[in-house]
Order: sequence, then structure tokens, then C-alpha cells
Amino acid sequence: MAKMVVSLSVTPLGTGSTSLSKHVKKVTDIIRESGLRYRTGAGFTDIELDSYRQLADLLDKIEKTLVDMGVQRISYVVKIDRRIDKELFIEEKIARAEGI
Amino acid sequence: MAKMVVSLSVTPLGTGSTSLSKHVKKVTDIIRESGLRYRTGAGFTDIELDSYRQLADLLDKIEKTLVDMGVQRISYVVKIDRRIDKELFIEEKIARAEGI
Amino acid sequence: MAKMVVSLSVTPLGTGSTSLSKHVKKVTDIIRESGLRYRTGAGFTDIELDSYRQLADLLDKIEKTLVDMGVQRISYVVKIDRRIDKELFIEEKIARAEGI
Amino acid sequence: MAKMVVSLSVTPLGTGSTSLSKHVKKVTDIIRESGLRYRTGAGFTDIELDSYRQLADLLDKIEKTLVDMGVQRISYVVKIDRRIDKELFIEEKIARAEGI
Repeated sequence: MAKMVVSLSVTPLGTGSTSLSKHVKKVTDIIRESGLRYRTGAGFTDIELDSYRQLADLLDKIEKTLVDMGVQRISYVVKIDRRIDKELFIEEKIARAEGI
Repeated sequence: MAKMVVSLSVTPLGTGSTSLSKHVKKVTDIIRESGLRYRTGAGFTDIELDSYRQLADLLDKIEKTLVDMGVQRISYVVKIDRRIDKELFIEEKIARAEGI
Repeated sequence: MAKMVVSLSVTPLGTGSTSLSKHVKKVTDIIRESGLRYRTGAGFTDIELDSYRQLADLLDKIEKTLVDMGVQRISYVVKIDRRIDKELFIEEKIARAEGI
Repeated sequence: MAKMVVSLSVTPLGTGSTSLSKHVKKVTDIIRESGLRYRTGAGFTDIELDSYRQLADLLDKIEKTLVDMGVQRISYVVKIDRRIDKELFIEEKIARAEGI
């Protein structure tokens, strides 16, 4: 069960390289290790969450890890789909968008 | 002082009207009453915040108010600019973008 | 080859229902029929594109279809990753984020 | 008159500095010189536009200028509010959000 599906994009700024794979991979590791249900996309990672607090805790972990890698500025883009009338699931949202 | 500038867009879905002014005004009221430094734009409201937890608490308040108005689904878009190397201020960011 | 990966979210407003599956499925149909390489996510659809004009043409088609369905207001969120130094591919971006 | 209000954020990647003021100022210059009605925010610049093609042309100009400055990767976040039932104005949207 999930009360919201959050689509998260994390971009470290000022790293001096157009390649951000190293940082993005670390962010994926943190999400995976958190035990949350997620799915990686090209622009955003979809994550099933149950509260805004849970999102805040995840962002804290991501910031800590990136700062440990030397990052001094982070840009996040977050889209939250929060339904009160029913549970949300990543796979169900995708199946419906595909008309399956 | 602020550790991050958050640009927040809140859209209630399924309200049955193309006009969302009533809901958007309520969201602005919540931000104003929270005592945070903010600035309303056409697409996003910029807010100075000090932690992701503070953002989570604000989203909880917004959700509670919209649900009390009968809203059953909410779409948020959030851009977070988090600098570790210096404090961020809404007015300073705008002045620099304008080249003032 | 693709010069940019665009992550696109399309939300019809004022439809009177919290369910948007019918509209979202139509948008996916348009993207599929356009022959572009794409991948559906829960929050965004990733699309490989070669110019901003191509994106504009796609948005025109989407608007036309939604308006034909009776939609009177549309909210789009678009993230564009544009690299000048190398070609971008959806699958490669995902593989790198997953550390594969 | 404007058929859409576009909120635009432009971030050059791989510049090697956490400060992006120089690039952001250039983007504001391009928007100003284009003669479009706009308003600078901390996270996004709101712009009144009449077509997706007009947006594509603006992004082309911005890319050209940033590439001339040496930028090799650009991340854009774009929110488009498109109403078919009425004209949109930046100032009116802000006034309504503020409850004026």
C-alpha cells in the first residue's frame, strides 16, 4: 500500500563534469537500500511513499551522501501524486497509462 | 537565513472546474500564516526553508486544508534549490537573475 | 540517436473526476503513434527527441486530442535533458542510474 | 493576450561552479530582449506565450547562447498552464493566488 507516488530527480550542481552517473547511481543505491518500492526512469525515479515525512527523511539521506562525495549544491525536482480516495501503485499507474 | 529555496506548485485534481483560484488562495493563506518568507509567482510560490522536515510539515498542513475542502487528489510539483556553501534568499536569487 | 531526453507529464484539469486514466492513455497512444522512442513511468513518460520543435509539435497533437475529448485546461510538466557533448538514450540513462 | 503561462527553469550542468548567476542572467536577458511579458522568480521565470512553437524558438535561442558560453549540457524544467476557456495573464494569476 502507498498513499503517494513520488517522482524524484536529483541533480548535483558545480561538480565540473557533464556526467553525473556516479552521483545518480549513489542516489539509486540509497533508494534501493531504504527498502522502498521504486522504479528507475531516465528523468525521474518513481517511489511509493506513505507520508511527506518519509520523503523528507529520504532527502536527508540523499543530501548526506552527496555532501560526503563533495557536492555543495543540489537541485531536486519532485512531483507528488497524492490520492486520498485510493491507494497508488507504480505498476498500476503505468499499466493504466499503457491501456493494459 | 535559509538553507534552501523551495518552489512549490499545488494542484487539486477532480474538482470539476477549470478554475482553481479558491484552492490556490487557501494554499497561499497557509504559507503566509506559517510565518515563512515567501513570494507568489504565476506558476510556483517560492519559499525559504531550513529543512526537508519543514517542507513535509507544510505539505501536511496544505493537504489537511484541501481535504477539508473536499479535495480527493492533489498533484504537487516541488523544485528545491539546496546550497551547502552559502545561505539562500529569494530576493537575492531574483536580483542576480535580473543582473541587479 | 537523440539530442535530448524529455520527461513529460500531462494533466487535464477540471474534468470532474480524480481518475485521469482515460486521458493519460490517449496521450500515451499519441506518443506511441508518433513513432518516437519512449518509456512510460508512473509520473512521467520519457521520450527521445531531436529538437524543441519536435516537442512543440507533440504538445500540439496532445492538446488537439485532449480538447476533442472536452478538456478546457491542461497542465504540463516537462523536464528536458539536453546534452551537446554526446547522444542520449533512455535505456542508457536508466542503466547508468542502476549502476549496470 | 496569452494562451499559456510557462514557468521556465534553466540549469547549465558541468560548469564547475556552484554559482550559476552568470548563465541565469544571460537567460533573463534573452527573455527580456524577446519582448515577451515575463516575471522573474527565485526558482522559475513566468512567461506569457501563445504557442508551443514560440516556446521551442525561445529554447533554441537560450541553448545557442549557453553553448556560446561553453555549456555542454542543459537541464530545463518547464511547467505549462494552458487554458482553452480563457486568456491567461501572469499578474492576474498572482493576484488570484494572493486573494486580491
